[in-house]
Amino acid sequence: MSDSSVSVDPAVTSGPIPYSTKHYREIAAVPGAKVPFRRVNLTTGEHLDLYDTSGPYTDADAAIDLGAGLPARPGVVRDRGTQLQRARAGEITAEMAFIAEREGVPAELVRDEVAAGRAIIPANHNHPEIEPMIIGKAFAVKVNANIGNSAVTSSIGEEVDKMVWATRWGADTIMDLSTGKDIHATREWILRNSPVPVGTVPIYQALEKVDGDPAKLTWEIYRDTVIEQAEQGVDYMTVHAGVLLRYIPLTARRVTGIVSRGGAIMAAWCLAYHRESFLYTHFAELCEILARYDVTFSLGDGLRPGCIADANDAAQFAELRTLGELTRVAKSHGVQVMIEGPGHVPMHKIAENVRIEQEWCEDAPFYTLGPLTTDIAPAYDHITSAIGAANIAEAGTAMLCYVTPKEHLGLPNRADVKAGVIAYKIAAHAADLAKGHPHAQKRDDALSKARFEFRWHDQFALSLDPETAREYHDETLPAEPAKAAHFCSMCGPKFCSMRITQDVRDYAAEHGLETEEQIDAAIAEGMAAKSAEFTAAGGRVYLPLA
Amino acid sequence: MSDSSVSVDPAVTSGPIPYSTKHYREIAAVPGAKVPFRRVNLTTGEHLDLYDTSGPYTDADAAIDLGAGLPARPGVVRDRGTQLQRARAGEITAEMAFIAEREGVPAELVRDEVAAGRAIIPANHNHPEIEPMIIGKAFAVKVNANIGNSAVTSSIGEEVDKMVWATRWGADTIMDLSTGKDIHATREWILRNSPVPVGTVPIYQALEKVDGDPAKLTWEIYRDTVIEQAEQGVDYMTVHAGVLLRYIPLTARRVTGIVSRGGAIMAAWCLAYHRESFLYTHFAELCEILARYDVTFSLGDGLRPGCIADANDAAQFAELRTLGELTRVAKSHGVQVMIEGPGHVPMHKIAENVRIEQEWCEDAPFYTLGPLTTDIAPAYDHITSAIGAANIAEAGTAMLCYVTPKEHLGLPNRADVKAGVIAYKIAAHAADLAKGHPHAQKRDDALSKARFEFRWHDQFALSLDPETAREYHDETLPAEPAKAAHFCSMCGPKFCSMRITQDVRDYAAEHGLETEEQIDAAIAEGMAAKSAEFTAAGGRVYLPLA
Repeated sequence: MSDSSVSVDPAVTSGPIPYSTKHYREIAAVPGAKVPFRRVNLTTGEHLDLYDTSGPYTDADAAIDLGAGLPARPGVVRDRGTQLQRARAGEITAEMAFIAEREGVPAELVRDEVAAGRAIIPANHNHPEIEPMIIGKAFAVKVNANIGNSAVTSSIGEEVDKMVWATRWGADTIMDLSTGKDIHATREWILRNSPVPVGTVPIYQALEKVDGDPAKLTWEIYRDTVIEQAEQGVDYMTVHAGVLLRYIPLTARRVTGIVSRGGAIMAAWCLAYHRESFLYTHFAELCEILARYDVTFSLGDGLRPGCIADANDAAQFAELRTLGELTRVAKSHGVQVMIEGPGHVPMHKIAENVRIEQEWCEDAPFYTLGPLTTDIAPAYDHITSAIGAANIAEAGTAMLCYVTPKEHLGLPNRADVKAGVIAYKIAAHAADLAKGHPHAQKRDDALSKARFEFRWHDQFALSLDPETAREYHDETLPAEPAKAAHFCSMCGPKFCSMRITQDVRDYAAEHGLETEEQIDAAIAEGMAAKSAEFTAAGGRVYLPLA
Repeated sequence: MSDSSVSVDPAVTSGPIPYSTKHYREIAAVPGAKVPFRRVNLTTGEHLDLYDTSGPYTDADAAIDLGAGLPARPGVVRDRGTQLQRARAGEITAEMAFIAEREGVPAELVRDEVAAGRAIIPANHNHPEIEPMIIGKAFAVKVNANIGNSAVTSSIGEEVDKMVWATRWGADTIMDLSTGKDIHATREWILRNSPVPVGTVPIYQALEKVDGDPAKLTWEIYRDTVIEQAEQGVDYMTVHAGVLLRYIPLTARRVTGIVSRGGAIMAAWCLAYHRESFLYTHFAELCEILARYDVTFSLGDGLRPGCIADANDAAQFAELRTLGELTRVAKSHGVQVMIEGPGHVPMHKIAENVRIEQEWCEDAPFYTLGPLTTDIAPAYDHITSAIGAANIAEAGTAMLCYVTPKEHLGLPNRADVKAGVIAYKIAAHAADLAKGHPHAQKRDDALSKARFEFRWHDQFALSLDPETAREYHDETLPAEPAKAAHFCSMCGPKFCSMRITQDVRDYAAEHGLETEEQIDAAIAEGMAAKSAEFTAAGGRVYLPLA
């Protein structure tokens, strides 16, 4: 890594995920492009190709050289503006074609959603290492993993390892939230080796440059930091430009005040000078800088609630309305925009967040942190927030920022990163199912069929974490023959509920319920017993764009 | 344990939960009764009393003698029928008075909900060791933990330990699902030492008596098993009486057929004889037996879906309609009833389950297993199902049966039991918040206030798992001074977002926003920016009985 000033020799986890192989598809529109999939190879001879975020690290044939970084993908164009501008012009970019194949949707859908500002493709021209991806409610729900060192812990090597580790388990983007030493070098190592878009919060580095005193921050220092990061290839940046002076007193009576670090920095600055922040007053200039690289705005929610008691309050929604205004400014400059959301929200207040974000921010993709649905479970906030994440994603949130078990307690280690990513892949997938995503249920059905047929290896293979699933099974029935046994440890060999179904099928056949038509008729009879309104509800289809 | 035929010497975890002490309240209505609370003692000198399921095991002053069992509570009456019958007669029983104090609600509410069949008090006359509790949507959402040995693993001592361990972390009831050897003795040890109601599935033991062959089951064998268990003190029994012959072929084309063990046993019996099961044909006689002891029916969902693809199908709902009929029969015999529910359900199909259960089963309490909201995460099904559990509880489910990380893979060990209980306490509490339970948010607010004021010990004290929360904090900042530090490991000592709030408060004071009235006016101004319909939605109150 030529511009790293420190000696770094990271070690990362590589090699295929068990039972899977790397598979690439070519696309006619982009010669040389390789759209990646994780091919799950089943014992039946069948296979299922899954969306794959893990980059070359899970390709048994790839040569990994962390010092050299990942190779550039073909088709990167630097001189024709942002994905938004090109989509508006009717162009299907190389990135859009790649994404269409990856998501299994028409390229026109990708282009049209980007053109409308309902989806974004975070892809800085200076970050050609990434495999393009899209964030928008018409597509699969995405997951972000935060990494980064702090003043008290961790090293560059650890952070590169966490990045690779997080994408191995399914992180769609990474945010480097480093606040300690070597911020620039850490980011360089991450960017050059990341197969997924990388986001940052530039104010963190700007604050380091002024020794941690918010009052010493200036537009010039901030601007130069943004340019430095954009030059490196950062794909999206959190900007807390919606923290206006008049909103700050609205937080005074909150239980937990201002909990966003960026929000608190900007609030401190506003209070120190008693005027609007440079992020707000120089927003148009910032747009021009971001447009030059196609860096996407992630408009930060600096006044997000930090606890259940503060959810959906006046401060939060006042800022959100301003983010809507800034969205229109950014889009007028051709800059892509997504909107950050809470945080801590009880379940009955979740849908409201999505509804007004969509209304006020012109359907810009919503990107939420959780939200945590209760405050009482530190050490389990990946679970308290996976509940909120699943619900807010079902309501239309496009990307979920993960929360790890260490939230509120410490910085996540490797195990925490994995626990956070897996919990959020669950939330995202549960939402995809609830939204009727056209491809999501294939994996559930394949796994359930394997479960029913006692194909243990295939169950493991299709699961989010094949290693742990197998390990848990081994704890009770470790021997290899048990992996082919037609029973499981819960009921033992003497009796098994699933085996009885074969008798049911035999019975059905004997009683003239053998053909599909006969069974359909019997089911129709059963369905007739259900209320008419249920049948109507059961007819729900996938209409995310409605 | 006089009637145990085996030598057993269980060791259980006892002693107070860190930072808490046992606190009892007396009630005038029941001389000698001690209503338990976990008193969390804060460093501010304040305390918060929490609902406590853990029995004498967390009382530093209690003498635990597992061989002798727990002492009987005062006020048990054996000769005046069931809680349902007594509630209908207008009586406030000792159990109702106890529960009213425990839940912080009027005793009349308890009585009226029981009389209407919207709530149940599982309390077999022969199980005087329990601290009475209630299951109904007007009260705090409850959590059940399944334990029990199988033919391949575990011992009596382990199961008693798991029972105590599960109630320590918050399990409101226990189900003993043993299917291996020593079923009777295992249950006796659990019953005599359990401070919470114990449920069983009698068909499991009945099947053991006929060497595991469903076709050898008879009404007489089943009846005698039910009486044996009722005599021992089992508080509620799962009965799969809704599996009718004509529903069985409806499962033939499912992806995972019949996954309920009890459902599969009864289906096998029905197929073997080509007639309705003895559970259905002898249901009235069964009601008479249960009424004698005040054993509560948990009407089992033998045809529940075993995967996402099978959710809300004709077989499931056909059986549910029959459970509604059986509910009416049971209530006509004065027997208390709750209804079991799925299982595996994608999020958008969850509310429908509650709606039709309430409609068809006269608002009998709903008791659901999860549901899992996706099939793709074995080893993490406590999370896939906590998402479903929180949602179904918000919709009106009264008790949630936990799922552990070992679901589908093996029998839960001690760590799995704890992981399952904690995940479900989160789901239950998130639902209580969403339903506007009058006491739930006190704990969130106390914890968040402690968090904001950097009272680390109080954060740990108020959390669902103080030990793990503290352990995670120790990993990054182990020294005792860090527990009083006004920063955390995420931002380090140089900058902390929460400290800025004091500046905000000073600023507010300087700008004439010091008094509550001034800040209210400012907030009102901010609120005016919000849409009128939001204000209306924000006015939601707790009306569970509407």
